[in-house]
Amino acid sequence: MPSQELEYPKQPFSTVNRYNNRASYSLQQIHEIVNTTHFINVSFTDPSSPFPVSIPMIGQMGSFARPSADTGDVLDLYLHGYISSRLLNLSRNNNNSDNNKKGENTGSGSSSNGEEQGLPVTISATHVDGLVLALTPNNHSYNYRSATLFGHAALVTDVEEKLYAMELVTNGVVPDRWRNSRVPPTGAEMASTGLLRVRVAAGSAKIRSGMPGDDRFDLENEQVAGRVWTGVVPVWTQMGEPVAGPDNKVQAVPGHVRDYVRDGNKWAREIALEQASKAMKPKKTED
Amino acid sequence: MPSQELEYPKQPFSTVNRYNNRASYSLQQIHEIVNTTHFINVSFTDPSSPFPVSIPMIGQMGSFARPSADTGDVLDLYLHGYISSRLLNLSRNNNNSDNNKKGENTGSGSSSNGEEQGLPVTISATHVDGLVLALTPNNHSYNYRSATLFGHAALVTDVEEKLYAMELVTNGVVPDRWRNSRVPPTGAEMASTGLLRVRVAAGSAKIRSGMPGDDRFDLENEQVAGRVWTGVVPVWTQMGEPVAGPDNKVQAVPGHVRDYVRDGNKWAREIALEQASKAMKPKKTED
Repeated sequence: MPSQELEYPKQPFSTVNRYNNRASYSLQQIHEIVNTTHFINVSFTDPSSPFPVSIPMIGQMGSFARPSADTGDVLDLYLHGYISSRLLNLSRNNNNSDNNKKGENTGSGSSSNGEEQGLPVTISATHVDGLVLALTPNNHSYNYRSATLFGHAALVTDVEEKLYAMELVTNGVVPDRWRNSRVPPTGAEMASTGLLRVRVAAGSAKIRSGMPGDDRFDLENEQVAGRVWTGVVPVWTQMGEPVAGPDNKVQAVPGHVRDYVRDGNKWAREIALEQASKAMKPKKTED
Repeated sequence: MPSQELEYPKQPFSTVNRYNNRASYSLQQIHEIVNTTHFINVSFTDPSSPFPVSIPMIGQMGSFARPSADTGDVLDLYLHGYISSRLLNLSRNNNNSDNNKKGENTGSGSSSNGEEQGLPVTISATHVDGLVLALTPNNHSYNYRSATLFGHAALVTDVEEKLYAMELVTNGVVPDRWRNSRVPPTGAEMASTGLLRVRVAAGSAKIRSGMPGDDRFDLENEQVAGRVWTGVVPVWTQMGEPVAGPDNKVQAVPGHVRDYVRDGNKWAREIALEQASKAMKPKKTED
């Protein structure tokens, strides 16, 4: 943990304006949301398309320069995904001019003139924690923890960094999976795997927790309050019993998988229940 | 159901290039993914920001012109969300020139010259159905069902359409919730609620199911195959026991909530297990 809690700088594009009492700029909170969602959404502009590109990918935050860094430290986001060929090409193109000037594999996200290199991307990670059912449709809401990161994506070309990122992403799917699978990757596997590093420029989180906030005139209307059930339906991501594949030769589900399913489910459920029972934010800022 | 299965036209920006055997353009499949995720991701370009905007919102597909339309019919996407003030403003600005020409509330998404009005948006909806654990990190994957829609967002101004969309979105949170809450909305509630209609220009889905696909040389390596467990950890969105709020006056959890939690969980789990046990796609197209 850093000695004091780090926050992302508030930029015009990253500042939460509406319901800003739900906002957080804490690296710790933002990185934790990103690292605990099964997928994140990556958006970027493709000059050849009238619409932005938006694709789900696997992402995990870490620091190649300081692998022992904590969640609340300054980290990069590493991205891996099947549908990223356009993203990879755009990132490559975006780096070419810079690479010609200073060569690749410097491990630095900034070019010599101080400008960031790479493709501008926006990352969105969201946990839905509950359905908030109020007296009136207008006061319905979700409990959620949502994070946004803004940064520049560049292809990872350094072999050591690529190995670091592959291990980070694999252990993001199931903790400790890397050393429980066949490693190291072959040369062909290394060559065919594309990973992106996002240097984060800014970020924010938005969190809603607690019970519905209804209006006084509805609460005082006995006919309404006596008829409409209000509360929260907790929501979380559940993992089921692992199903062995047809080629599997290992008798028992190994501990790293079994433990993750058990502990992950327990933890996810507890958060959803905790978020439901947290004190409501002041009524003024609710719809 | 339409008499034949409708498909979105393949546009340069909507065509799935990589793993295209996982692609689908079926309205039915795409709309079902969008309508069954708890949130969707909305991306658009903000001229004042170097990064695209990407925000989670609640979205539901329907047809105001033909409310009885099925999931596989031509539908619009209605969006509602707390963090949409920039989106609302951009959509408003994008419509102004057009509205001046032809007036509002025509219920048509196309201007008289054939160009679409509204803000270009990309919608991404994703279900994670399983963690696919293979012998080697490279062959790890997810089972998922992911949909992308490309369209033009415009503010809903017609009162009847707004009511239709509010009911659609509310019943998307919990089926039948609308008539089990205090309706109709007051004038103030109608005025304070911003809803967007997205006219869909194109869309695609991408679906991965089945067990891991490992390489022959790993499968034939007894030391590897005898040590590394392979299979699928099914994943789904789980809803917990509803928790009554402090203001709730209704004794029992009502049927529409209870049934949704029970049936929704059963259905979500069954899909995750089904997706895990489906036949693998031909090896050639896997990593």
